[in-house]
Amino acid sequence: MGYLDSINSPEDIEKLEIEQLKVLAEEIRTFLIYKVSKTGGHLASNLGVVELTLAIHNNFNTNKDKIVWDVGHQTYVHKVLTGRKEDFDTLRKLGGLAGFPKTCESVHDCFNTGHSSTSISAALGIARARDIKKEDYSVMAVIGDGAMTGGMAYEALNDAGRLNSNFIVILNDNEMSIAQNVGGMSRYLSKLRTDPVYTKTKEDIDNFLDKLPNIGKKARKAVRKLKSTVKYLITPGVFFEQLGYKYYGPVDGHSLDELNKSLQAAKKIKGPVLIHVCTQKGKGYSYAEQSPDRFHGIAPFEVETGQTYGKKLPDYSEVFGEAVLKAAGMNDRVVAISAAMAKGTGLFKFSETYPQRFFDVGIAEQHAITSAAGMAINGMVPVVAVYSSFLQRAYDQLIHDIALQKLHVVIGVDRAGIVGEDGETHQGEFDLSFLNHIPDFTIMAPADYYELRAMVDYAINKHNGPIAIRYPRGRGKDLIKQEIPLLPGKGAVLEEGQQVCILAVGSMVETALHVSQKLKEHGINAGVVNARFIKPLDVELIKTCADKYKYLVTMEDNCVMGGFGTRVLDTLNTFNYKTRLLIKGLPEQFISQGSRDELMKKLRLDTDAVTNDIIEMLKNTML
Amino acid sequence: MGYLDSINSPEDIEKLEIEQLKVLAEEIRTFLIYKVSKTGGHLASNLGVVELTLAIHNNFNTNKDKIVWDVGHQTYVHKVLTGRKEDFDTLRKLGGLAGFPKTCESVHDCFNTGHSSTSISAALGIARARDIKKEDYSVMAVIGDGAMTGGMAYEALNDAGRLNSNFIVILNDNEMSIAQNVGGMSRYLSKLRTDPVYTKTKEDIDNFLDKLPNIGKKARKAVRKLKSTVKYLITPGVFFEQLGYKYYGPVDGHSLDELNKSLQAAKKIKGPVLIHVCTQKGKGYSYAEQSPDRFHGIAPFEVETGQTYGKKLPDYSEVFGEAVLKAAGMNDRVVAISAAMAKGTGLFKFSETYPQRFFDVGIAEQHAITSAAGMAINGMVPVVAVYSSFLQRAYDQLIHDIALQKLHVVIGVDRAGIVGEDGETHQGEFDLSFLNHIPDFTIMAPADYYELRAMVDYAINKHNGPIAIRYPRGRGKDLIKQEIPLLPGKGAVLEEGQQVCILAVGSMVETALHVSQKLKEHGINAGVVNARFIKPLDVELIKTCADKYKYLVTMEDNCVMGGFGTRVLDTLNTFNYKTRLLIKGLPEQFISQGSRDELMKKLRLDTDAVTNDIIEMLKNTML
Repeated sequence: MGYLDSINSPEDIEKLEIEQLKVLAEEIRTFLIYKVSKTGGHLASNLGVVELTLAIHNNFNTNKDKIVWDVGHQTYVHKVLTGRKEDFDTLRKLGGLAGFPKTCESVHDCFNTGHSSTSISAALGIARARDIKKEDYSVMAVIGDGAMTGGMAYEALNDAGRLNSNFIVILNDNEMSIAQNVGGMSRYLSKLRTDPVYTKTKEDIDNFLDKLPNIGKKARKAVRKLKSTVKYLITPGVFFEQLGYKYYGPVDGHSLDELNKSLQAAKKIKGPVLIHVCTQKGKGYSYAEQSPDRFHGIAPFEVETGQTYGKKLPDYSEVFGEAVLKAAGMNDRVVAISAAMAKGTGLFKFSETYPQRFFDVGIAEQHAITSAAGMAINGMVPVVAVYSSFLQRAYDQLIHDIALQKLHVVIGVDRAGIVGEDGETHQGEFDLSFLNHIPDFTIMAPADYYELRAMVDYAINKHNGPIAIRYPRGRGKDLIKQEIPLLPGKGAVLEEGQQVCILAVGSMVETALHVSQKLKEHGINAGVVNARFIKPLDVELIKTCADKYKYLVTMEDNCVMGGFGTRVLDTLNTFNYKTRLLIKGLPEQFISQGSRDELMKKLRLDTDAVTNDIIEMLKNTML
Repeated sequence: MGYLDSINSPEDIEKLEIEQLKVLAEEIRTFLIYKVSKTGGHLASNLGVVELTLAIHNNFNTNKDKIVWDVGHQTYVHKVLTGRKEDFDTLRKLGGLAGFPKTCESVHDCFNTGHSSTSISAALGIARARDIKKEDYSVMAVIGDGAMTGGMAYEALNDAGRLNSNFIVILNDNEMSIAQNVGGMSRYLSKLRTDPVYTKTKEDIDNFLDKLPNIGKKARKAVRKLKSTVKYLITPGVFFEQLGYKYYGPVDGHSLDELNKSLQAAKKIKGPVLIHVCTQKGKGYSYAEQSPDRFHGIAPFEVETGQTYGKKLPDYSEVFGEAVLKAAGMNDRVVAISAAMAKGTGLFKFSETYPQRFFDVGIAEQHAITSAAGMAINGMVPVVAVYSSFLQRAYDQLIHDIALQKLHVVIGVDRAGIVGEDGETHQGEFDLSFLNHIPDFTIMAPADYYELRAMVDYAINKHNGPIAIRYPRGRGKDLIKQEIPLLPGKGAVLEEGQQVCILAVGSMVETALHVSQKLKEHGINAGVVNARFIKPLDVELIKTCADKYKYLVTMEDNCVMGGFGTRVLDTLNTFNYKTRLLIKGLPEQFISQGSRDELMKKLRLDTDAVTNDIIEMLKNTML
């Protein structure tokens, strides 16, 4: 490659002329398409910000200037430009280059992100610290229009509106979150892009002037004055101006010239500035331009065809979505809500089949949950599907709006447990721990698709009250053992044993069955119980197990503290059992990227590790 | 009283003429001032919405129309008008009238609130359910300008902007949250109130017309046309108009005539409407008008003087605030952040002493936490003081922005445990459970003011990383036992015993000492340990206790699941101890209003109950 080879730090960009930068932009696109086609990753958003990122590094010095990237999956270009080009073969792999900004990776990453809508808050904090220390540099948040639907972006926008020092918000407007963006703000941005108010008014005024008879020089001057007053008052971006921002835009996000001009201007302003940059997701790669949502986060693919390898088999999200769709066909009170994740959560078919009963509320988990509560109190049965790590953002709303009113809302907790390549910010490590202590919540976890379907049916049609179903990312089996009818609050005994019994949650049930097989090789006859209900716990079953077995083992892909195992332990303690309990779960630490299998092994939650731990326990306590 | 006596349901209001309603308004004010002076409660906000509430009931029928009151402490007038007048003597008392809307209290309450900024989401859910069911009534959210700084209000405002059916948002603008309101939105509203853009422009245009020479009839007509175009484009409320709302306002919130007019108009509109109503907090009671924040939530007071009874003694919040202030005096990197609660959290003096280092970010807990993370990463030591139940809203930000980056941010978890009269939504029931499993977080709880001061000093000056101090509402003692230096991760043994040892958290330590005294009367010699650190747990001390004592008891004013007791239990289990453990904590249920003492008794966390439970345990297991 031409210029890209010579780029090892942002300083190298400054040496290039604008025409050379334009060539470099195309080289970066080729590089990213090629690299991501091998590793998988976030492609479309990165193709969209090539010129923007180049312009930022051309006008700012990230050795001192601080750039906070909202969500952060659009930082591949930034990583290419800041000395991490060589690491792209390890992108999102165990121990490799992260798919998100990491302060530990580079001094050019000033704040870690991963969840949406945090960047303006973080940047404001950084700017306020700068001002207290009387330091001098620019602080910038780069945020997408999708992330702007998240409430905390607005909380921060509102707070920063009164700042008196340099503070730049770049609104990267690609008309999308992961899917098409929604809501009044989105419509407003679209209006700014395509039909700026001021254009219309300018025409009105011009028309007016044309129609005026000859009114003399003095009058013409007055008209001109009026024109400028009016223009000022109805400038585009009045929404942001009203919040205290100087608005620049709309700026063509693929024009380095336009970008340079606005960034240079913004740099000089004391006070908050918002630059409205319009970009195209997937820019420069036709398949990604056509299907930006498919290329949002994509598995390895063939560059020539844009196709991923192998046949796409149904995953937990799809099975969940199909089950909800089926329930909706039989019950017209069933509605579905997604926080900008209709496809990811398997609800896309629902949204097409029942558009009147489907609500994509934007990247707004808090509002998703509370608006579901509103629908439930007015007679609907809302199903909200959210990724486990994003549901963390609606913890208060689960308590305050759903549980406190005992409302019948079904929460699909997708991507529970280890999600793999997205790393720390996206692992579903905590959902059992933050749901478990909420009064009146029922929590279930299916071990296979058969159970997931049964649980969706149970949650929607047979239950009344707050209920969550947590299931993992990716594929499961149709049936791991046998069809045992789902009974409220009851676990299912899959295997009877003698000394030891494994009680497992959700996807860990399959591992538990493997462990049981392995133990047999060591002459140990283990029972296996599929918990099914984490809450209410099947206390009778726990007592039966504690009566029968000397050793119990719990397995969950959730952090130990506050999860299933501690609940079982508490139950044993309450009933004064002295049964030895081994709790297997995620350790109390953040879990970085890697494949699910690699991570489960590393975390000692794979078949071998659990088998060994059980043998070890038996050995130690039998001595 | 005159008209008030005859008001037993909202229908009775319809019988009154507007002049009679004006008299009724004053009667309601007198009634509220008198009643709240006896019971304590939220006075200022209710005095501000007397006319608004009357007008709502005058124009809507809450047997079918749905009104969601944001936060809900401003529903006293609504309660007076909906058949609950006689219950005001029991306001906020155990088993009495709630200080917030409760669907269980009245059909006129359609959705429970308590935390800020949920109303538009809930109302939107209700409206969407209405539309699916093809029902016909109005749905309304009444939200203060303070609550509008909360992000989820904006999430909902954005989502509702595309609704095609009747949906009314009443923005009750009193220029305050609890304290003075903050941010760009607040400034914008203030501009609308005092200097509407359109007034200015109207003047400009009039000036222009005056200056024009005689231009003839045709030209004049063109000018008039321009005038109306311009007026439309720069109408006040353009911010809301851009989000898709029809804007009415500003409306004088103390004029029944103006209110009636706008409510009637709003009722007829298909699509979202925002009515900007200006009210005065405390209206009609001079002391409350002068000090609306003191009269926001007030203890019983003397009507004639506006003074509460007894001398105000320092409470935990004040001691916390003083300690932070002291630390700030010695370390200029210490900054303090409040989410609209400077006074409530004891940070008011800090805000006056170090205005450059104090940030009231509005009712925006998510942004408070993440902006603190931004400040921490840029070299500050931020102290964020938030009430326990409101911190629930920043759970994800604690994980994602603070813990994941191991940032040195000090969280003051105020109002932890039972808060009393505010009831279910405000109890600090869960903070230990939602903080406990977050990796790398340190959690402390002081048993007295001595320890609180030591912990603030430790957290700010000696610790590095995420750290929370949780302390109760109200008053504590300077010293409950003796001054034992605070050591990182170490508990303090307060009393040595023989058979049984009580390990207590924070405010429960004092109860534990009382229990120990009581047990002595029964010949039981109990040890007492002040845990101090919930996380990291003092494992060595737990092991020492488990070695020495046959029975352990944990005490915490947090729900059992995921809290201190289950952590101790997990530790005992990990180290294979068979020690009997009694976990005393809050039950897994929502806890309604009442005085703290009443509730602790009811929940069996008072001295007598704990003493009895311990005696019972010893009796049962010794048999």
